[in-house]
Parts: sequence; structure tokens; C-alpha cells
Amino acid sequence: MTDSRIPVAVLGATGNVGQRFIQLLADHPWFRVAELVASERSAGKTFRDATDWRLGARMPEGAADLPVLGYDADLQSPIAFSGLPGEVAGEIEQRLARDGHAVLSNTSTHRMDPDVPLLIPEVNPGHVAAIERQRKNRGWAGFIVTNANCSAIHLTLTLKPLHDAFGLDALFVTTMQAVSGAGYPGVPSLDMIDNVVPFIGSEEEKLETETQKMLGAWSDDCGFQPASFVLSAHCNRVPVRDGHTECVSVRLNRPATPGEVTDAFEAFRGRPQELELPSAPTHPIVVRREHNRPQPALDRDDAGGMASIVGRVRDCPLLGTKFVLLGHNTIRGAAGASVLNAELFKVDGILPL
Amino acid sequence: MTDSRIPVAVLGATGNVGQRFIQLLADHPWFRVAELVASERSAGKTFRDATDWRLGARMPEGAADLPVLGYDADLQSPIAFSGLPGEVAGEIEQRLARDGHAVLSNTSTHRMDPDVPLLIPEVNPGHVAAIERQRKNRGWAGFIVTNANCSAIHLTLTLKPLHDAFGLDALFVTTMQAVSGAGYPGVPSLDMIDNVVPFIGSEEEKLETETQKMLGAWSDDCGFQPASFVLSAHCNRVPVRDGHTECVSVRLNRPATPGEVTDAFEAFRGRPQELELPSAPTHPIVVRREHNRPQPALDRDDAGGMASIVGRVRDCPLLGTKFVLLGHNTIRGAAGASVLNAELFKVDGILPL
Amino acid sequence: MTDSRIPVAVLGATGNVGQRFIQLLADHPWFRVAELVASERSAGKTFRDATDWRLGARMPEGAADLPVLGYDADLQSPIAFSGLPGEVAGEIEQRLARDGHAVLSNTSTHRMDPDVPLLIPEVNPGHVAAIERQRKNRGWAGFIVTNANCSAIHLTLTLKPLHDAFGLDALFVTTMQAVSGAGYPGVPSLDMIDNVVPFIGSEEEKLETETQKMLGAWSDDCGFQPASFVLSAHCNRVPVRDGHTECVSVRLNRPATPGEVTDAFEAFRGRPQELELPSAPTHPIVVRREHNRPQPALDRDDAGGMASIVGRVRDCPLLGTKFVLLGHNTIRGAAGASVLNAELFKVDGILPL
Amino acid sequence: MTDSRIPVAVLGATGNVGQRFIQLLADHPWFRVAELVASERSAGKTFRDATDWRLGARMPEGAADLPVLGYDADLQSPIAFSGLPGEVAGEIEQRLARDGHAVLSNTSTHRMDPDVPLLIPEVNPGHVAAIERQRKNRGWAGFIVTNANCSAIHLTLTLKPLHDAFGLDALFVTTMQAVSGAGYPGVPSLDMIDNVVPFIGSEEEKLETETQKMLGAWSDDCGFQPASFVLSAHCNRVPVRDGHTECVSVRLNRPATPGEVTDAFEAFRGRPQELELPSAPTHPIVVRREHNRPQPALDRDDAGGMASIVGRVRDCPLLGTKFVLLGHNTIRGAAGASVLNAELFKVDGILPL
Repeated sequence: MTDSRIPVAVLGATGNVGQRFIQLLADHPWFRVAELVASERSAGKTFRDATDWRLGARMPEGAADLPVLGYDADLQSPIAFSGLPGEVAGEIEQRLARDGHAVLSNTSTHRMDPDVPLLIPEVNPGHVAAIERQRKNRGWAGFIVTNANCSAIHLTLTLKPLHDAFGLDALFVTTMQAVSGAGYPGVPSLDMIDNVVPFIGSEEEKLETETQKMLGAWSDDCGFQPASFVLSAHCNRVPVRDGHTECVSVRLNRPATPGEVTDAFEAFRGRPQELELPSAPTHPIVVRREHNRPQPALDRDDAGGMASIVGRVRDCPLLGTKFVLLGHNTIRGAAGASVLNAELFKVDGILPL
Repeated sequence: MTDSRIPVAVLGATGNVGQRFIQLLADHPWFRVAELVASERSAGKTFRDATDWRLGARMPEGAADLPVLGYDADLQSPIAFSGLPGEVAGEIEQRLARDGHAVLSNTSTHRMDPDVPLLIPEVNPGHVAAIERQRKNRGWAGFIVTNANCSAIHLTLTLKPLHDAFGLDALFVTTMQAVSGAGYPGVPSLDMIDNVVPFIGSEEEKLETETQKMLGAWSDDCGFQPASFVLSAHCNRVPVRDGHTECVSVRLNRPATPGEVTDAFEAFRGRPQELELPSAPTHPIVVRREHNRPQPALDRDDAGGMASIVGRVRDCPLLGTKFVLLGHNTIRGAAGASVLNAELFKVDGILPL
Repeated sequence: MTDSRIPVAVLGATGNVGQRFIQLLADHPWFRVAELVASERSAGKTFRDATDWRLGARMPEGAADLPVLGYDADLQSPIAFSGLPGEVAGEIEQRLARDGHAVLSNTSTHRMDPDVPLLIPEVNPGHVAAIERQRKNRGWAGFIVTNANCSAIHLTLTLKPLHDAFGLDALFVTTMQAVSGAGYPGVPSLDMIDNVVPFIGSEEEKLETETQKMLGAWSDDCGFQPASFVLSAHCNRVPVRDGHTECVSVRLNRPATPGEVTDAFEAFRGRPQELELPSAPTHPIVVRREHNRPQPALDRDDAGGMASIVGRVRDCPLLGTKFVLLGHNTIRGAAGASVLNAELFKVDGILPL
Repeated sequence: MTDSRIPVAVLGATGNVGQRFIQLLADHPWFRVAELVASERSAGKTFRDATDWRLGARMPEGAADLPVLGYDADLQSPIAFSGLPGEVAGEIEQRLARDGHAVLSNTSTHRMDPDVPLLIPEVNPGHVAAIERQRKNRGWAGFIVTNANCSAIHLTLTLKPLHDAFGLDALFVTTMQAVSGAGYPGVPSLDMIDNVVPFIGSEEEKLETETQKMLGAWSDDCGFQPASFVLSAHCNRVPVRDGHTECVSVRLNRPATPGEVTDAFEAFRGRPQELELPSAPTHPIVVRREHNRPQPALDRDDAGGMASIVGRVRDCPLLGTKFVLLGHNTIRGAAGASVLNAELFKVDGILPL
């Protein structure tokens, strides 16, 4: 029996996000992991020998015996999922895009480029139109599409139905972010035992600009036009392995009751749900009604880590509405987001095959 | 040599806040711990035998051999520091106040009463005027003065110089609170290992109302008039032993630069500093200039836990100014606050001696 | 379609172990959860309303709408899985056994009774013979079978192949136990943040006596005869949610190399593996060869939590052999152990049906 | 007023152990911090600018304005306290010893050299005799004295009175070690949140050999002769900031009751206590009698971190005696140990002044 699934490459395969890609793609119906790329330290070894696998006890069998290729490898797979570290991502991802690959990137390098979509299929599927511009501008056979920062993805997914139903005027968000967001080794344990660090480099700026870009418009004439709401972010690192918690207060153009807001969250569906994409959660937003949820230890894996979990929807004396959201930062906040993007591309026929 | 210090009683002596009182009073120049009160389970034992001391390796020698008295004991000490649990505090504290004691309480029972001050000596020393009203209203020989909730104390201390200099219009605060705030046994470890709980019962309401009362006015004609700013709070429990971290965004009536706000924080002094009260920190607000401070593990014990530590003062795109504050929740946030209040009372001659 | 699976009751259904039973039985091929029993506080509600579900985001649908029965309910299910708290377990479990139920208990009440098996199907399946004695002795229509303490189960499972192959003379074990072993609320977070507690009540004694009973013999003439090795235990509580880690040094009657010990671990199979029981792990003992494994965060869920994970098999300068083991304390260490016992009973036809 | 205290240098001043030296020496009656040495990255800056101070909120004022010197600096201070990282320590420490400095080292490089003492003043003050040999052998004007590994220091301190009173035959120790032992950044938080790592590189070997060397003899004829007991160690990293906990079982040549063992612990004194050295704890071993102590969060700072805290002294069914010990790993386990050594040298006139 031949495997007719589309071969894909995972860049930065031995890292935190790379491992998550390999885990999520292990039994994927449409894609199969065919090529693994990592730094020179790992290149030439099998994935098994090169990798300190950290997502549970065992790495997927299919990946274990694949050879790890170096950064300069010529790849055969039409799709390249990238969890490359920011310092090397730019050049490698550009080369692959130029050479005809669909590159789905998790680094911040190209996120704010005027011809690169920051894509969430439920939120801004129309932004894929920018790909055409990108290929023309740059003379590339392939293209780059990026995910937003992990906090921004879940915030945006949650804001989308509110923006559509009520209009978004201003919001305040305080994040309590998990350590896996900083990779491995990442955050020292002396910073996290009995402690909170009220700062994550560039995170507040990313949250502000990326959320506006994603909820904004694309037009062939004007390019990306960021949404015009005001966003203020406080970002913190807390002693949690996975799952970012965010406290949000929002001012809507048309004030809404907690019940209306909850209804909007629960009614929300997007193209991945319509198309029943393999990685799409049934509900992109799951609403919890308990007084003390969501909690990362209990809720981060709900819906396979692909939904944003919302709770405590209530009135805000200052901005009108407040709530808490939780999202898995390396699934829907990184690798899973790219996989969903690739699924959309396949259905929409925009893979460079 | 006779000990001429004022004898004081500690109510709820075996608990979390009670132990902190005993630690802070161990070598106090003006007060000596003379009487200890706890529930029937402890009454009749020595403090040493009744108590699982949890503030370091050793309890103060002076307290160890004191007998623990029951809730119904007749106390001789003019001052009663109370760390009683909320369910029993009301009746006991009222009886002691009626009988002529100055009761300095940490429970929420009487905090919002129209004739009970919520006192921070640096913030609202004028609120002691309400004591006269209280004694007359209630026919009490003594009185009750309360501390605010631990998060509200540090928030209010920090807001005071901004309110005075620029006027406070609106603010947003997200807390990340330590588990010692819930006492012992308090928060289960299954709720705190690899987790955040985005809810603390009644905490958000307390933050909103208590802060407004403390920053408001007292007049003999109108009683307490809460300050008129709007406050929205999100309260979270995080895996930290001691020290509440709060992310604050504030809209001032007269906009101020981060430099002006920092100057206001650093210039802030109150009556405790003028009077050089024994427990007064030199600066009620300590400003950190590093990009990632304050942090509870590093900064909570600065200034003996009696100051609020502020950092990351910067512009807020939504409200104008944002910053992070950290405060020790059982020192300046509870026991230390009461001790400072008592020191003020002694100097001002309003102890019922 | 009728459900021909055997109906089972879960006692203590709302608690830590009870929830684990319900999770493990949710899609069981032979058993279906039919009755739920809990304390009066919960009785009369649906399971959904009575329970703060803490094993992930969602309780199994099948259980959610079941009514919770009180401790005195007349049960119809032939099998009763018990996660009752120790203080109430004795009487309830005895009544049910008397009335004809197979009671599979996790409390320590009856563990050391001379006619009650402490059963691990891979280790001492012959101990079921004691059931006959028990029913005769007590005039019961049903019976009670118990699981050992969670630390003892994993230790015993690991020692079994060494005992068989080389003979066990003496051993030393230091445990680092997860907080879920103490239930909910259980261990206070102030005891577990930045801390280790080097004591767990009665745990060291249980480890010593229960391990000897399980690795000992049963004969109709002499009853249980404990194995004669010497065991010394140090038990500690550490800040881990699930998974007990144990450092073991062992003196064998016939000294063995690390390679021989590893081979014995890996070759180990028992009746559950022969019978291919639904909950049986393929290998009861999984050997890790990395220098720093097993680790609870990575390995506790391997083999569905039903295996003991062993690593660092090496020479011990004092006793000959040392290694580290890790086991999931509420799956193979509690609920999963009972489920496996029930599966064995079904195949062996000793259920009171 | 001139400062007549002996000037000392701190090598590796910006690191974890270096900061602890500076903290402990801040108000030392005999020594003053005069020179600070760190890597090229820090050299040329002030200590304030070069250092991310992590021992509380504030670095000692006296050190803050000192310039940081590079590794190749010519030092004027007769004493050099070294917290240098292992990879660079060897060469630098040797050069300084050659040039006439008393080097008190915390790295493992020279610990097992046949002419280098591993010194604990309460345990083996006679080992200083090896210094003469060392200087002659190597033609050095100064010398190197080392501390043992942090776990070995506390274990040895605890074993010493047992060895003297009863004779030590064999022992088993399982450590649960704090993350500060690995420096900063050190252990990744993904390894420590909800986890235990049952391995620390070379730690078990160090515990075995260093303990034997320290409890052994020195003679001019035979040099160091290690004590002949057998020691088996299991070393683990746990989520604790400071304080190593060790579970110990010991076989004594002359069996002793828990009472006798406790008496031996409590009666123990050494030369630092006789000489009343400034950093000497009154009792080198503190015995706790509670059933669940010592605990790192509560007891690590007792006696200023300079004592070993022992608890749970009881019979061991396998080796005769068991107990738990706790020791501060960067005070008596590192920097404080060197300071105590230097104090002994000053009194004994063996500083190269």
C-alpha cells in the first residue's frame, strides 16, 4: 500500500514546536512527515538519536528513524512547517519559499511584513489573498504564511465574534503565560519556583500589533489595514508548563450583556468548521460556566488544544465586558495553528504542488 | 528591669496572620505580646504546643511559653491585634471593642461599615476621625479599626500619590496572588502545581469597594465618601508562597509621563515617615528600574515587607499609564499594616489606655 | 442495542480515586458504570452537579447524568469499585460484600486481614484462593479484595521478576510521592511550593508490610506467609501532581548484573498479559535507558499509566543493584489496579454473578 | 577610620556562589570584599552593572561600586574565595595559589587531589596539614583548599559524630536537591514544574568519594586515607529553590538507639565552636523532633544556613538507624563553608599574609 498523503518537512524538528508538529502530524489523514530539518548539531543523526523527546514518554514511531537534515538541505516536500528559532528562520524560510515551498512559519521575522498573512482560518481566511502579492513582489515560486504569537492567536480567536457582532473599540489584556512558550531550556527554574516574572521580551508589542493586523482587512488596493481598536497588554510568565491564561476587559461599540457575549462565543464558527478540516475543533471557542474556570491544568487539552477556552464572562465596570481565556500555546498557539492553515490551503487549492 | 512596653493581645494567634503578628512584634520597641487567643482546640495549651509554626524554623522565644486563651477570655491588654477567621471574628471583635479594647482587625466583617475606618496611615490618617463616631454610635469603650484586603492595601498605597498629584479617573488591575493569602491549609496543592486559578471569592468586589473607600474622604457631616474613580479587577491565584503581584493600568485626570509618575511614587511620604514610626518603611513605595522587576521571590521582603514595590512604569495605550506592583500580603498586606496602625494610634494618643 | 456489559458501582465516586474509576471505565469493553455512590452531601444530585471533575476538562458523558446514591443504598451491580475514604470504607464495604457484591477496595482497612488478598494480577494471582476462606469465615455472599498502597503496588510489580529470578534478600526504597495520592483538597499548597515534606503518615509501615504480603505465599493450610526479605522505606511528598518516583537499592540472593536485572524486568509477563486483559499493559515493566529517566512529567502516562517505568539500572556499592522506578499512583496505583483485578475475576469466573 | 579587616577577592563574583560570598561577607568582622573577578563579559563594569543580583532585592552597598576584574587580573588580596565555574577554575586557581594566595575553592577540579584538603572545620581540621605538602610538591607560595560538593558537606557533617561515637560501617543516602545547586540559568523550568529528575551528573560518585575522603585520615607518611565505610547514593533534583534534603540509613559498628544517635548529634561540637568563629553555628547539627521536619521551605535558613538540620531519627529495619537531614546548599554547602575555612586559617595563622 502506498501512502498517498502529502509529504511535509518539519524545520527545527528537535525543538519544542518542532516536536509538537511531529506529534500532531503523526496520524494525520492528509500529511505525512517525510523530512526533518535541524541545526548542524543534529544533522546526520536519526531523529531518535538527535532528539530529547519531551512530549510524553515516546516519540512517534514514524519519525524516529528519519534522518535529520541540515539547514541547507534541498527539500522535496511541498509543505515546510517551521518551528525554527528566530535567529536562523529568516534566511532559511525565504530560500524555501523562493524555491517553491509553502512555508508555514512560527517565528516573528515576517509576521508584520506587508505581504505576509498572519493567518487564523476562523478569523481572517481572506488574508490568503496577500500570498499572490507576496509571490509577485518577491518573485517566489512558493510563499510564507505565518502564525501570530501564541498569546495573540488565542486572544484574536476570542475577539473575532465580538468584533463581528458588536464592534471592538478598546481592550485590556493581562497574560499569565506558560514556560513552554519560551522553548527548552527556556526559562530557568530559579525564575519560576515560587515566582512570577512580570515581563516577556517584546510580547506586549506583539500582542498589540499582531491582533490588530489579524482582525483588520486586506484589500488588493490598500494591502493590510489594521483594525482600529486600542489594545493594552501586560505580559507575565508564571509557573505553568503549557497553556496561556489571559484576563481580558473589552469595550464594544455596541454594548452587550454577558449573555449576549456568551452567545456570540458559542455561536462562533469559521471556515475550518464548515469544511470540517481534520484539525478543526467543533467549536473554536469553548465556554465554561463554572466560577473558577478555565484553568490550565484542567482545560488546556480540551478540544485537542485547538480551541480557546473562555470563562467568567461578566460585566466590567470600566470597559463593559470582562472574561478569562485559556489557550494551549504550542498547539493552537503554534504547531496546531500551522497545521490548520495547511489543511485550509489544501482544500482551497493554494498549495504549490 | 521591668518591661514598660504596652501589652498587646493577638487573636487567632495560631493561624497564618496570627503567626505573622507574633513574628513582627517579637522585638517591637513599644509593644509586647502578652496574651494569645485561639479556638478551643488550642486553648489551654502553651503557644509552643498549640502551634504548627510556619514562618521559618523557630517561633519567637517570648511567645512560645505563653498560654493560649479561648475566644471568650477576658483580656487585659489595651490593644488586640486580630487575625481571626471571618466566621468568628465579628462577635469576638465587637465584644472586645465594647469592653474598651482597641481592636485592629484583618477580617472583612466590618470593613465597609459606615463608622469603621479602613486605615493606611500613609493614605488616609484622617479617617481615624470615624472612631469617635463609632464609639458614640455603638456605645463602645474601645473601637475597631480594620485593614483592607491584602491586594487593596498595596494597590491603594501605590495609587495615593497618583491620586494626589494627577487625580485618578479609572483603572484596571489584574492580580496574581500568593497562596498565603488564603491561610493554612488554604489552597490545595492540586490547584497550584502547574496551574493558575482565575478566581478568588469576593476578591474583585473587595478590591473595587475598599480602594474607593480608602482613597475617599471622611467628614463629620457626610461620613465616608468613596473616591469616584472606576476600578475593574481580575483576581487570580498563582503558585507563589508570599507576595501579590498586580498589573495596573490607570487613567489620570491630568495625564502624566512615566517620569512624572515615577517621581510621584518616589517622592511619596506619609505620617508614618514623618513620625518615624518603628514599622514605617523609609519609602512607602520602592521603584525598581529593571525591565523585569518586581518579582515576588526576589523583592517581597524588601523594606521588611512594609513597602509596595513598583516597576515597569510606562505608557499605556489605553489608559495612559501602566505599571506593575508587588506587595507582601501578610506583612504590609495584613499583620504589619495593623502594627503600623497601632503605632500611629500610640503617637496620636488615641489608644484607650 | 442493549448494553450487555456488566454493570458496576463506583463508591466514593466524586473523589480523586472515584473520578479515576469513572474515567478508566468510560469505554470499558466488559464493564459499564451503572451506579455511583458518595456521601450524603452529594446523594440525590446528578453526578454532574455533585462533582468538581478534576481529570481534564470534561467528565465522561455516560456518568454525568447518573444519580448519586447515598452510602446506604442497595446496589444492583455485582461489582463495586471502591475509592471510599478510609474513615467510612470499612462498614460499607463489609455490608456490600456480605450482601453478595465483589468489592474491590483501595482503602487500607482490610489490606492486612488474614483472609483478604492484596492482589496484583501479575504478581500474586494465586492469592485469590483466600477469597474462598474469606467467604466461609465471614459468611459472606460476596467478598472484598484490596489493592495495596500506591507506592507498594509499583514497588512490588518491579520486585516480582527479581524475586523470581534471583531471590530478594533486602532492599532500601526512598519515595518521592505525588500530591494526588493524598486526595483533594489533600496537601496544602503552602507545603508544596518550594518544599519537600519528608513524611507521609503510616506510609513507610504500609510499604514494608504490604510488599512482604504481596510477594509472599498463600496456602490453604498456613494462609498468607509474608516474604522474608527486609525492607526499609523513606517516604516523601514532593510538588508533583501525579506519579510516584522511587529510588531502590536491592540485595538479591543470587547477585545479578545490571544487564541481567534489565533482562528480567523486560521479560516479565503475568496472567494479565497471557489473558490479554483489556487494561493489561503489554509490558508490566517498561525499561528506560536514558541516564535521566523516568521522570513523572514525561513518563507517568506511558502504557496508559498501567506499567511501572524503570530506569538507571546500575550497580549499588552497598546492596548490589540499584534503580529508579516511576508509577502512576491513581491509575496502576489505585483505580486501574482494581479494574485489572475485576477483569481477572471475570475471566476466572469468580465474580458473584 | 581605616578598615583593618583582611581584604579578600571573590572569584566568579557575578554567579550564584559568588553572590552568596558577597552577601555573607558584607558585614564580616575579619574580612572585607576588596576585589571581584568574573569573566570578560563582566570585566570593566562595576559590580552593580555587571550583575543580575538574585539574593533578595538588593546587593550589598559595599560591593556595588567595586570594579569587576577579568580572570587574568593580578590580585592584591591574600585570600581568594572562588565560586568559579568548573571549566575555568583549574588554571586560574592554580595561578593564584602559585602566586601566594590562599584559594578557597568550590569547584570539583582539585577536590580529590592527594595534596588538597577537602575541609570542614568541625570534621577534619587536621587535614590542613596537607597544605604544607601541597606547597612543597607544587612549589607554590600559596595554596588551594576545597569544599566538598554541597550534598557531601551536609552528609559528612551529620555522619561525623556517629562515626566518632559508634563507627560507620555502611550507609545509604537519597538526595532531593535544590535547583540553586546547578547555578543560574541552571535547571530549565520545564524540568522542574510538576516533575522530579532522578539524576544529577557525577553527583552520586562525588557523594561517595568525597565523604570517604573527609571522614578519613591524613598522615604525613600515608597522605589521605579514605574512611572505609560503604556508601550508596541516589541523587535527585526536585522543585525547591534552596536546601538539599537527604534520606539516610546507616549501619554503625556499634548499634545505637535513636536516643543515643540524637544525643550524639546534639552533643557534637568542633573547633569552630570552640574558637567561636564568626560564621560558626552554635550547634553544627540541629535536631528537630517533629514528625515531619526538616523541610526546606521552613528550616533551610535556621542557624544562618550554617548548620545541618536533622529529623526523624528512628530505627531502620535494614541498617539500624535512619534519619532525614537538610542543609542549605549555597551557604554551608558552598560559600559559607569557604568563609568558615578562612576563619579557621586566620586563627591558626596559616594564611599567607
